[in-house]
Amino acid sequence: MSALNPTHDPKRRSWVETANAREAAFPVQNLPYGVFRRKSGPEAARAGTAIGDQILDLAGARRAGLIDGRAADACSEPTLNRLMALAPADWTRLRQQISDCLATDGERADDCRRRAAELLVPIADATLELPAEIGDFTDFFTSIYHATNTGTMMRPDSPLMPNFKYVPTAYHSRASSVVVSGAPVRRPNGQAIDPGAAAPRFGPSRLLDYECELGFFIGAGNRLGEPIPVARATEHIFGFCLLNDWSARDIQGWEGQPLGPFLGKSFSTTISPWVVTTEALAPFRGPAFVRAAGDPAPLAHLASADDAARGGLDIVMEVWLQTARMRQEGAAAVRLSQSNANDCYWTVAQMVAHHTSNGCNLRPGDLCGSGTVSGKDKGSYGCMLEMTWRGTQPVTLPNGEQRNFLEDGDELALRAHCARAGAVSIGFGECRGLVEPAR
Amino acid sequence: MSALNPTHDPKRRSWVETANAREAAFPVQNLPYGVFRRKSGPEAARAGTAIGDQILDLAGARRAGLIDGRAADACSEPTLNRLMALAPADWTRLRQQISDCLATDGERADDCRRRAAELLVPIADATLELPAEIGDFTDFFTSIYHATNTGTMMRPDSPLMPNFKYVPTAYHSRASSVVVSGAPVRRPNGQAIDPGAAAPRFGPSRLLDYECELGFFIGAGNRLGEPIPVARATEHIFGFCLLNDWSARDIQGWEGQPLGPFLGKSFSTTISPWVVTTEALAPFRGPAFVRAAGDPAPLAHLASADDAARGGLDIVMEVWLQTARMRQEGAAAVRLSQSNANDCYWTVAQMVAHHTSNGCNLRPGDLCGSGTVSGKDKGSYGCMLEMTWRGTQPVTLPNGEQRNFLEDGDELALRAHCARAGAVSIGFGECRGLVEPAR
Repeated sequence: MSALNPTHDPKRRSWVETANAREAAFPVQNLPYGVFRRKSGPEAARAGTAIGDQILDLAGARRAGLIDGRAADACSEPTLNRLMALAPADWTRLRQQISDCLATDGERADDCRRRAAELLVPIADATLELPAEIGDFTDFFTSIYHATNTGTMMRPDSPLMPNFKYVPTAYHSRASSVVVSGAPVRRPNGQAIDPGAAAPRFGPSRLLDYECELGFFIGAGNRLGEPIPVARATEHIFGFCLLNDWSARDIQGWEGQPLGPFLGKSFSTTISPWVVTTEALAPFRGPAFVRAAGDPAPLAHLASADDAARGGLDIVMEVWLQTARMRQEGAAAVRLSQSNANDCYWTVAQMVAHHTSNGCNLRPGDLCGSGTVSGKDKGSYGCMLEMTWRGTQPVTLPNGEQRNFLEDGDELALRAHCARAGAVSIGFGECRGLVEPAR
Repeated sequence: MSALNPTHDPKRRSWVETANAREAAFPVQNLPYGVFRRKSGPEAARAGTAIGDQILDLAGARRAGLIDGRAADACSEPTLNRLMALAPADWTRLRQQISDCLATDGERADDCRRRAAELLVPIADATLELPAEIGDFTDFFTSIYHATNTGTMMRPDSPLMPNFKYVPTAYHSRASSVVVSGAPVRRPNGQAIDPGAAAPRFGPSRLLDYECELGFFIGAGNRLGEPIPVARATEHIFGFCLLNDWSARDIQGWEGQPLGPFLGKSFSTTISPWVVTTEALAPFRGPAFVRAAGDPAPLAHLASADDAARGGLDIVMEVWLQTARMRQEGAAAVRLSQSNANDCYWTVAQMVAHHTSNGCNLRPGDLCGSGTVSGKDKGSYGCMLEMTWRGTQPVTLPNGEQRNFLEDGDELALRAHCARAGAVSIGFGECRGLVEPAR
């Protein structure tokens, strides 16, 4: 797809100059979708595309006749659900039209540029909202390094569950408490038991953690009882975001048996506002995750030669922390870790195929998370539980502060980008949240 | 509330004669809400109240001026979410108006009766739909007998988890696959591992089970970060239904660690279409579940003297089975078990308080389940896993058939009613589903 698709052409540049900067997250090759409101105006929320430091107002572009078709029609809605419900061919057509509006050599560029004052909104002047109404939120557990590390803490002799290499493990998570980047995150109260204590206590979580995950939105869904085959699953994925699955480890540890995580997770999940499309990420697929010698082959419902050949997603994911003291001292955020989504044991197509293999229906706008993306080495551990080895090896920050877990006033940000020879780098923007004290 | 509330008056009778039969599920003291469409007409779905074998069309009643106010205004919507979002005072006012329409001595009875041809729809001529758009579905695990039985099968030495008597245990479940009574349920395919096998297989579940649960719908929600105190929690519960949490025990067993149930549950959950309101159930509260001597007192966020004094819900719940052969032979369904919702270790107020204690937000129309309602004795076990002790003690049906788990063609129905001296008995209607072969 990449070679033939003009929207990926690395020579394309935008007349929105900030999109052409070497470090720009949103060059004309990216074109992620989001939902925004102008801070100044009474206008309803609508879809937009990020380009450099601007947003192209897609409801306005449609009114101006710059984009058309049923995908363009869906852009006046206050969520992306209707756009997500369409087919990949619709998404491709809209992306092509938007690229033609924003690229210097695009057929619609002159028209669009003439209306720039009306159609472009600086990102700084907009409020970004949740991109979709999320029907269900499913969180997977696909990093073998994360599974092995957390398993080792609990079961040193057999860290990895016997099902890990067969099952794209997941749990249903909470949709109502998914918030968009920038929303504060209140430290939860909850039940937890102290080591050696006879009974649990109720109070503010003492082991508040983040989890660095890749999120993805379902496009067209499936009917109840009709699984999506793994070979077709990619067509059902609209796009990707960053996802911080905030976790209260002490609450999670006490409540977790026999039914898994509940209140240790459901107090907040933060996602980044821009949805980077499956099509924009096409040049950054592969290679496949390398299974260890002797690992079992995927069962038939998870096996697709084409999906295996195309491989995972080469997305560099980073975790950044700025403490309250760092803010006071004027110190910039510090990077805690860097991992890669390609280290997931299962592809997103396998996750979707597995999710629907029992007939479970997915709906447009449903959100899935990859689970914590951790790599092999300590510098690539995607949560503090692993990085401090359950709080026993604190992280020392440049100003001398130490962290076992998150403290009130800490601001955590996830960032991600894709870079590859022959392609223009694209970014995801930020997924950010500041920890407020417990109520 | 019961003594002063005329809608509970046991002397009230309805001019809809079928509502006065001794075994009627829907006497004028019940007045459950549902969403229906006439089978014959092109009319949009709207809210209705069951009365005897009829439905009072609430959108029509409002247009006719028989009911008014913001609760009545919400009844023209195709779901009950807007009605659920209101305050208990609104619900009480609407219930009073409907009672006044349908009771022989009601102030609005003559007017309503005159329009009966237009406003009453036989239940048999209507299609009942899901009562609400369900944002999130949470399933609890509150029967100590169910927890002890299932725990004994896995951990004979310590069946009950150490957290059971402190935590109203729950997991997030799947909202998209909740279906209304009567929808067929397809046996799921999935991964499972046979005893002694080195690797799992993928195929139709061999251990398909039902779970007899009480469901409840959230009324007004709470804002993210703002818990609902246990003493106010009942005000946030709109009403109750029956819930069959279909379970594929083999899939559930293999996938369940470390994150809990996923595909073993998400292929379908069936609920009954009529929502019996919290107000209708008020005469049937209590007594409190009797904790064993030495059981810990609830932690502060779960402790309310008033809620404890009012106690649980005295609802008799029954499971009925009709096999394909029984249908061919013209044999009626057979009752497999009978339990009581009062055997739950936690009240619904405690479940709601716990659910929000970490700040998690509930929204109007969110669905919660009690978990399998099992009592102390074998005749009160609410699922086949317990009744056949994991398939080792098959159930023998009157025609000689045996069941370890459900077979294709089996139709499972949950029924429930409340009966108490001094009150008119009320019922829930049915929660029914027929098992279809795997795809």
